[in-house]
Amino acid sequence: MSDIRITLPDGTVKTYPHGTNGAAIASSISEGLARVALAIEVNGDVWDLGRPIEHDAAVKILTWNDANGKMAFWHSSAHLLAEALEALYPGVKFGTGPAVANGFYYDVDLGGIPFGEEQLAAVESKMKELAKSNSTFERRDVPKAEALEFFTKKGDPYKIELIDGLQDGAITFYQQGNFTDLCKGPHIPGTGLIKAVKLTNVAGAYWRNNENNKMLTRIYGITFPKQKELDEYLHLLEEAKKRDHRKLGRELELFAFSERVGMGLPLWLPKGTILRERLEQFMRRAQIKAGYDPVVTPHIGSKSLYVTSGHYEKYGKDSFQPIRTPDEGEEFLLKPMNCPHHCEIYKTKPRSYRDLPIRLAEFGTVYRYEQSGELHGLTRVRGFTQDDAHIFCRPEQVKEEFVKVIDLVLHVFKSLGFENYTAQVSLRDPANKAKYIGQDHLWDQAERQIQEAADERGLKTVAVQGEAAFYGPKLDFMVKDALGRSWQLGTIQVDYNLPERFELEYVGSDNQKHRPVMLHRAPFGSLERFIAVLIEHCAGNFPLWLAPDQIAVLPISERFNDYAKLVYETLKGQDIRGLLDDRDEKIGRKIRDAETKKIPYMLIVGEKEVAEQKVAIRQHGQGEQDSVLLSDFVDRFRLECAAPN
Amino acid sequence: MSDIRITLPDGTVKTYPHGTNGAAIASSISEGLARVALAIEVNGDVWDLGRPIEHDAAVKILTWNDANGKMAFWHSSAHLLAEALEALYPGVKFGTGPAVANGFYYDVDLGGIPFGEEQLAAVESKMKELAKSNSTFERRDVPKAEALEFFTKKGDPYKIELIDGLQDGAITFYQQGNFTDLCKGPHIPGTGLIKAVKLTNVAGAYWRNNENNKMLTRIYGITFPKQKELDEYLHLLEEAKKRDHRKLGRELELFAFSERVGMGLPLWLPKGTILRERLEQFMRRAQIKAGYDPVVTPHIGSKSLYVTSGHYEKYGKDSFQPIRTPDEGEEFLLKPMNCPHHCEIYKTKPRSYRDLPIRLAEFGTVYRYEQSGELHGLTRVRGFTQDDAHIFCRPEQVKEEFVKVIDLVLHVFKSLGFENYTAQVSLRDPANKAKYIGQDHLWDQAERQIQEAADERGLKTVAVQGEAAFYGPKLDFMVKDALGRSWQLGTIQVDYNLPERFELEYVGSDNQKHRPVMLHRAPFGSLERFIAVLIEHCAGNFPLWLAPDQIAVLPISERFNDYAKLVYETLKGQDIRGLLDDRDEKIGRKIRDAETKKIPYMLIVGEKEVAEQKVAIRQHGQGEQDSVLLSDFVDRFRLECAAPN
Repeated sequence: MSDIRITLPDGTVKTYPHGTNGAAIASSISEGLARVALAIEVNGDVWDLGRPIEHDAAVKILTWNDANGKMAFWHSSAHLLAEALEALYPGVKFGTGPAVANGFYYDVDLGGIPFGEEQLAAVESKMKELAKSNSTFERRDVPKAEALEFFTKKGDPYKIELIDGLQDGAITFYQQGNFTDLCKGPHIPGTGLIKAVKLTNVAGAYWRNNENNKMLTRIYGITFPKQKELDEYLHLLEEAKKRDHRKLGRELELFAFSERVGMGLPLWLPKGTILRERLEQFMRRAQIKAGYDPVVTPHIGSKSLYVTSGHYEKYGKDSFQPIRTPDEGEEFLLKPMNCPHHCEIYKTKPRSYRDLPIRLAEFGTVYRYEQSGELHGLTRVRGFTQDDAHIFCRPEQVKEEFVKVIDLVLHVFKSLGFENYTAQVSLRDPANKAKYIGQDHLWDQAERQIQEAADERGLKTVAVQGEAAFYGPKLDFMVKDALGRSWQLGTIQVDYNLPERFELEYVGSDNQKHRPVMLHRAPFGSLERFIAVLIEHCAGNFPLWLAPDQIAVLPISERFNDYAKLVYETLKGQDIRGLLDDRDEKIGRKIRDAETKKIPYMLIVGEKEVAEQKVAIRQHGQGEQDSVLLSDFVDRFRLECAAPN
Repeated sequence: MSDIRITLPDGTVKTYPHGTNGAAIASSISEGLARVALAIEVNGDVWDLGRPIEHDAAVKILTWNDANGKMAFWHSSAHLLAEALEALYPGVKFGTGPAVANGFYYDVDLGGIPFGEEQLAAVESKMKELAKSNSTFERRDVPKAEALEFFTKKGDPYKIELIDGLQDGAITFYQQGNFTDLCKGPHIPGTGLIKAVKLTNVAGAYWRNNENNKMLTRIYGITFPKQKELDEYLHLLEEAKKRDHRKLGRELELFAFSERVGMGLPLWLPKGTILRERLEQFMRRAQIKAGYDPVVTPHIGSKSLYVTSGHYEKYGKDSFQPIRTPDEGEEFLLKPMNCPHHCEIYKTKPRSYRDLPIRLAEFGTVYRYEQSGELHGLTRVRGFTQDDAHIFCRPEQVKEEFVKVIDLVLHVFKSLGFENYTAQVSLRDPANKAKYIGQDHLWDQAERQIQEAADERGLKTVAVQGEAAFYGPKLDFMVKDALGRSWQLGTIQVDYNLPERFELEYVGSDNQKHRPVMLHRAPFGSLERFIAVLIEHCAGNFPLWLAPDQIAVLPISERFNDYAKLVYETLKGQDIRGLLDDRDEKIGRKIRDAETKKIPYMLIVGEKEVAEQKVAIRQHGQGEQDSVLLSDFVDRFRLECAAPN
């Protein structure tokens, strides 16, 4: 047979014998790569490294650094878990065992044997022991009859049910060591690559997710190629748990949920409201400086508004349903976005090219239905407030407006301590231009302008073709938080669609009517989600200008309450927020409570402070520092507290 | 027959012969009163002055200064209009002709004779002519058969239809001059009291307000006891038209309505949003100073929230209907008020007597269905933002909290230039205590505390028994605007009901659980309505700190545009809002345009100003003043502009 041509990710084409495989290709590139190779992508599908390649193909060797490499690794780890369980619990029956976002699980039927967290250590040990023998994962095609016979003999009703649903010819088995599973793969070469194992959790799960079926035992785990990576992961997990915005939101009394108000509808408590209003104020000021005009629009709109915008056709069925009036004559919708309202404001009077750009900004609260199971703290809610704005401009103004919005977004990141970010430019699929609305030359112009704007501001960007929305190209920011997790924040989106649907116009210098371009942008995105990210990023230790309580005045004993009150009132008169803890408690307890509340400054007053009209400063997490005159503290505070400009 | 005992409004009791009447009683008090007496209130009912009084009674002589006196006057004027029409249009048929808020109307069937505004003058003249003859209004009881016979003979089908609906024994006729009407009265003694007449308007109106019936001609008018009062009224009407907030809202680009968004749902344009946000900021600052905690809650709540609060049962049918979810599993309502949400915030943690009062404040936008015909500019809308707050306190704290809220309300009135106000204390009906929720001694205590708080702040109050809501007593403010019109602004309402329904609790100093009292209050009421009143009160000439555009920089010609721009940018950098009019227009035109926009300061710059680095100041409506250094203008501006504290 003739050789085949293999195209590598960098575009080079190499010749290999017919029937070569991923392992051989990896070795031909470098021994280093061969050592860490986990699987291979062949024309977009993920294969085992040992599977023969029969035709010309574009390939990519997958390692731990590739999402699909990790998936194969964890999927194989699920099989290792199953092998260990079978060794420890003979007769165990298996449901399904997939890889998931962070690790894997296997649903098993232990025939009534009690199994809980305390059993995990033994299974973990068995997995490690089995991994040491480095069994290879062997793939083979199996006729349906043989597959059924195998699991009938073994007595596993779940696998039999799964095979019943499969077509003959589509069935593969994987075997490592003594364990064989119905599985379409792919898998890593051998169990020996799995160097670190942690079983994290046991839960109940109905077979095939149907509550009429039997409840199986779901065992969760995660594995890594190196012990160090597992240690880091567990540390991160611990840290993330401490920083969980739902936990801190409760402890710091920032927000709450109430069943009677409804799931996914946050109630902002006084301290959370301060945080929220500070952020709004910060953005409001930055936007006014940047030439935005605040507007206010209602939280509902007639159905016909969303029929005009196209939102009703696209999302109506899956959204909160229309609000009828008592006489049934009208129908309204909770607004899922602010743009249609802003289009209507644009239309309240004739616009000239001299008026553009018009930048309408609104802290607009919008409502979008999410299934209750999808809700999560402040990151997935049913009502949230966008720091929304819509820029109506001439096509040639797109670049300048992008530059300005990029500046605003970077100002937000810098002011809130997000120093680690990248950007993505989402472009049309050049091979499929017909699916996009808007004129061809306008797209070309806008895509060029976005890239130029990003370059001008020194953004590290990746341009991705085919990622644009049907109505326009966009620029997205990805931000890494203090734990290294990525969040998408701050999208700038070009829109040719709404100006068309709302028939927006301006009179050009040529005295003719033209259609403006619309830009959507929201640097925070949703205030709710942004605050969730911020809480986790700074672990609840907000910058001084944002902190709900900035100071706590702590008298050492009741004898100093009068002076403490004077200090507190003086600071309050200077618009410094905080509390006076004049409870009849030991000072140690008061300090601990203020530390728990993450209050930036504790001001402790006792005998000496009263005599000298001073306050003893103790910063959060830093122990006692010096005693200073109250006026000196105020000066120091002012310097540190100034909201970013 | 024996004498009867008549109790006068001041409590004195006088004896009169049996069968005396209002005219006689008025004369016995003073000839002055007798001259202006229009009707008499007998045990709460309004009677003609000539109607005999047969039993002991409490009475009050009604004059033009009493609402019911005016009603009798205008009702009699409607009869005078009818008499004039019958004289001019023999055979005219009459529907109904009541007094209304400002005057009266009569619906008539002219049998197809064209009738429009141009016919009004002749009718007006005829009314004046008839009034001079000073016919008395004669009342008589008429058996049903006789009543029917009268109008059958006259050929008036509308009156016959009305009589058909009446019981025998309940029918009265009134006659003045040649005109007789089916009417239950009361009326003024004679037409001679009607000294000034103005017919204002002609419109179509379906008989009995049913569109299947015939369209009648509705003629509106207003009358006064003195020509001077009519002149004043017409002047006021003219002035009110100029100040109409709908007109000014459009001209000053404050707000707009869009059919596609929906009726009664205002869109706040950039200039209106500035106004609105300044007011919010003003209130936010005042509230924080007064110890309020801002909170933010969603604009919807689950239906069960309003079932708990009782609002659903009471208003559900007539409100915006429930919002269903795609899976139909849940139901939400647009929130018609913020209190249930705030109760849920109260419940997020246990409260101690030491925590009270808790004052939760929110600029909460609420939605209430109004029929489209009821909508009116910003004063009757379907969505509006309340400067809402709920105070949760111990029963003994009610007085202190009332004092604080009164201070806040008076601060608002003073800051916005409303100097003319009164207050009403609404109390229980002591004869019907059972219809009120809440303990008897708490009501007594709260009513006393409200009155004490009002007295302490020197409020002129009227206490009205039976005007309290079923859930608590209240204090209302009535404000007179620059045109003398009254507006109810700033209610403080005690509520025993919601704390009960939401089972709110606090732990008292006795370590027992107690129920807090709740106070509702909103000094502005609705921002929308308040801004409407404010616009009309100040005719769009807002105080400097509120004005959307505070300055307009007007270069005399294009040669000075650079300097003008410098001035404009300098002021903008100092947070002074405004515009630069660098159009290629004559300075006269620019000044006129800035005057139309009611911009407080015009800064005119030409040769001299550039040379001396000055600006020529021209205040709205005051003509050119002096030229000053820009920095001096900024200082002067700062002094004048400071928002009230």
